[in-house]
Amino acid sequence: MSTRSFWGWGHAERFPDAAARAALGQQVGAVLGFEPQPPESPAEISAIALPPAAVVPWECADFVSTDAEARIQHTYGKAYRDQVRGFRGDFAAAPAAVATPRDEDDVQRVFEWAARAAQSIVPFGGGTSVVGGVEHPGALSLDLSALSGVREVDDVSGLARIGAGTFGPDLERGLEPHGLTLRHYPQSFEFSTLGGWLATRAGGHFATVYTHIDDLTASIRMLSPAGVFESRRLPGSGAGPSPDRLVLGSEGALGVITEAWMRVRPRPRWRASATAHFATFEQAVAAARAVARSGLFPSNCRLLDKREAALNGVADTPVLLLGFESADHPLDAWMARAVELVRDHGGDVRRPPTLRDDAEKGRDAAADQWRQAFLDGPYLQSTLISLGILADTFETAVTWSGFPALHEALVRDVRDAMKRVCGAGVLTCRFTHVYPDGPAPYYTFVAPARRGAELEQWAAIKAAASDALLAHGATITPHHAVGRTHAPWYEQQRPAPFGDVLAAVKRTLDPDGLLNPGVLGLG
Amino acid sequence: MSTRSFWGWGHAERFPDAAARAALGQQVGAVLGFEPQPPESPAEISAIALPPAAVVPWECADFVSTDAEARIQHTYGKAYRDQVRGFRGDFAAAPAAVATPRDEDDVQRVFEWAARAAQSIVPFGGGTSVVGGVEHPGALSLDLSALSGVREVDDVSGLARIGAGTFGPDLERGLEPHGLTLRHYPQSFEFSTLGGWLATRAGGHFATVYTHIDDLTASIRMLSPAGVFESRRLPGSGAGPSPDRLVLGSEGALGVITEAWMRVRPRPRWRASATAHFATFEQAVAAARAVARSGLFPSNCRLLDKREAALNGVADTPVLLLGFESADHPLDAWMARAVELVRDHGGDVRRPPTLRDDAEKGRDAAADQWRQAFLDGPYLQSTLISLGILADTFETAVTWSGFPALHEALVRDVRDAMKRVCGAGVLTCRFTHVYPDGPAPYYTFVAPARRGAELEQWAAIKAAASDALLAHGATITPHHAVGRTHAPWYEQQRPAPFGDVLAAVKRTLDPDGLLNPGVLGLG
Repeated sequence: MSTRSFWGWGHAERFPDAAARAALGQQVGAVLGFEPQPPESPAEISAIALPPAAVVPWECADFVSTDAEARIQHTYGKAYRDQVRGFRGDFAAAPAAVATPRDEDDVQRVFEWAARAAQSIVPFGGGTSVVGGVEHPGALSLDLSALSGVREVDDVSGLARIGAGTFGPDLERGLEPHGLTLRHYPQSFEFSTLGGWLATRAGGHFATVYTHIDDLTASIRMLSPAGVFESRRLPGSGAGPSPDRLVLGSEGALGVITEAWMRVRPRPRWRASATAHFATFEQAVAAARAVARSGLFPSNCRLLDKREAALNGVADTPVLLLGFESADHPLDAWMARAVELVRDHGGDVRRPPTLRDDAEKGRDAAADQWRQAFLDGPYLQSTLISLGILADTFETAVTWSGFPALHEALVRDVRDAMKRVCGAGVLTCRFTHVYPDGPAPYYTFVAPARRGAELEQWAAIKAAASDALLAHGATITPHHAVGRTHAPWYEQQRPAPFGDVLAAVKRTLDPDGLLNPGVLGLG
Repeated sequence: MSTRSFWGWGHAERFPDAAARAALGQQVGAVLGFEPQPPESPAEISAIALPPAAVVPWECADFVSTDAEARIQHTYGKAYRDQVRGFRGDFAAAPAAVATPRDEDDVQRVFEWAARAAQSIVPFGGGTSVVGGVEHPGALSLDLSALSGVREVDDVSGLARIGAGTFGPDLERGLEPHGLTLRHYPQSFEFSTLGGWLATRAGGHFATVYTHIDDLTASIRMLSPAGVFESRRLPGSGAGPSPDRLVLGSEGALGVITEAWMRVRPRPRWRASATAHFATFEQAVAAARAVARSGLFPSNCRLLDKREAALNGVADTPVLLLGFESADHPLDAWMARAVELVRDHGGDVRRPPTLRDDAEKGRDAAADQWRQAFLDGPYLQSTLISLGILADTFETAVTWSGFPALHEALVRDVRDAMKRVCGAGVLTCRFTHVYPDGPAPYYTFVAPARRGAELEQWAAIKAAASDALLAHGATITPHHAVGRTHAPWYEQQRPAPFGDVLAAVKRTLDPDGLLNPGVLGLG
């Protein structure tokens, strides 16, 4: 924990020095066609002024801290607007205290304290929310990182009982001795927790079939002020509306997830990968659709538009990256058919697919490198903030028939907004997941910021994107949660009476309204 | 409709005459080892006495009937206990009237009438519930069969907007001109509706991956007394708890589903099938587990225990029936690996797998025949009732590690119960669906009934089975819903505060408590 940046992504020591940042600024500027500003440095943590802390009752003293650094570390997630405020030393939204419960009894003690003191509780996993999911001034931040570890493994069923506070790498390390893996790699993997993934319906490693953490969940245990909400560990059920699906996506507003039984699997041994180049974006989309509907179920089916491919140094055309993996069988037939499909849609597969067997060649270093580069992506955003460059992403899911009009509107409206508020800007697109009925497109925007006005600039661009998503039948979020940022659009998206339904559920499970007020549009 | 049996399964004319029934009774008796009784005949519909009918308000007169036959046809589902009561002419539970709304405005008119008259409403699809899902004396039965048809097809996304009252065969006929299919074949397929499948989380055709109707649902439109509850048509979303998953399994207690966008797919062209024989049941289970965890995703992975295989004339050993299907590619590699896996677990695949391409050989008559035989299964139960033989099924899902102890307990407790209350009885087991973390076992029990005491005998056997399911961590229902029959066990199974949650949701959507009181343990 001590190396975590108090304002930016990940480990503090990964933030480059001023000279390196200036050099990176030149590179980025050359690619994007606009000038970065001279690097600034973040506020000194010791100079940060905080609002008053809570008075901790004696029964919580052993696991609650009012230490300034702890409160600073628990003020924000890692959204662009969080990092900008943190960089400037603005921690007015700090929690009044940070509780790190050692067990469920401690969670209960915090519930009682909060009810007595009429204080809100914000469940905090790894603090990587990009949607304002953990920000509530003066709350008690409930850091669940001590409720961690792989606690029990059922090898026969491929299930593991895991503490909600377990970070991604610890979770995989706990499964490795069993030859098992969860294989859930959101980009926040290193710094986020199982409980956070469940509470936000995180999207993961697999591009098809089991894409969301929802699909990997066999049962959940959640503490609510009204009692323990624990489902049965079942491979499937048809007994009434799914209780798990009410907890998944509840964003800490209905209870505190303490552990879950997760579906784990043998570590993959066979892998196949291929890259297809396309003359046009439309062709690449058509090929991705064909693969998504084929029943081949690739683990990777990542489309990059031309600019995204260029920025990533992959190609100077739109590309489709295909990957298969299996713990059970070689993948030659799967990949051969996928390549055939992609070629039928104009794809140029220049090199024969790579087919490998880890049992022969050892663990795939290239895959590990690719994953590390993917996980390192968010560091760049923090560096760009110091250079006065606004960089962020938004994501969605939409039907195949709805995608072209949505994409056109987003390109037009987001570019217009960047031009209007920043003077310029670049927008790129990729697909992170594909479904038989539509893709999950993921957009990155980068624009020159005006120092001191970044938050307004960001809000204008975000609103342009979000309005277009809603107008074109897409979802405001496929796997980054609603939090506070997306709430206005989420309220338009959901079925009209569903807001009242969630409010009624909240009154039942959290009658004093203690838990994470503001997320999901709940008071 | 006119040919539907008022008490038994399906078409009335399919009920054999007394001589044919007596002959069948001899056959069945020889196989089961106990004597059937001389066939009885069902009550005459004209002699059935009904409780008083409702007085229909003028604004509903055009679509509401108080006709005796309509009320009789809407009194029960098709559970064993429904058929026994119907056979005897006991329709004391008849609804006060049957509404057949022509559109959503008519549904609204029924809501208003019911609220004014303090009368319950029971949404009625095809009336095939086997769990008391549509039985509520004196209610208004809301028959949704007129809200039917494939209304819109999005070929690009593979989605179809379908009226909730559409019966299985009409649904497939509506999709056929588009070259598309839903491929959802519960055993009730011919006589049940899309809305019923959604409201009960029906299990369908596929043994792996997308097994439940839940997975095939892109969005749902439901009318509740509190307003229209309609979700967005999305391939995936992470925006808060899933609203669809609250409607799926709501069993008509939260609103009336009027239509849905369903994920449909191209009709399969390639098919592969194989049969493996095993020396022991345990070996067959281990082979099914291996296939379920392989990532091969067969469309069929049906295990039959020795007795089930014998009764179906398939084999005199435990067998595993494997099937693959695809609209995209030949299945040789998939089947080859599945056969290898099954052989590794002691399976004897005596004949080479069948691999066929419908484009070469035309539609697969054998598959059509098998499906028809499967769909005809429930007719036998009605015939056995007339012979004084008690025959029913119960189903569950459980982890692979939990299955052996559960199976042992079920075999012991259900046989004990049959012996105690019937003097004898046969229990068979198959797997209908398999998941990476566990199977969905399906049990059939057949025992000699004592005329007049069938319902008590049935209740004792059902209780023995249900108690064992609950004690061994299994679900009370994987895909037959909770209804009224399963409510006592469902209340033990669900998370403790979930009953209060559902009650709060019901108060929000159905403040006057009009809709299907009693299902899901809701008042």
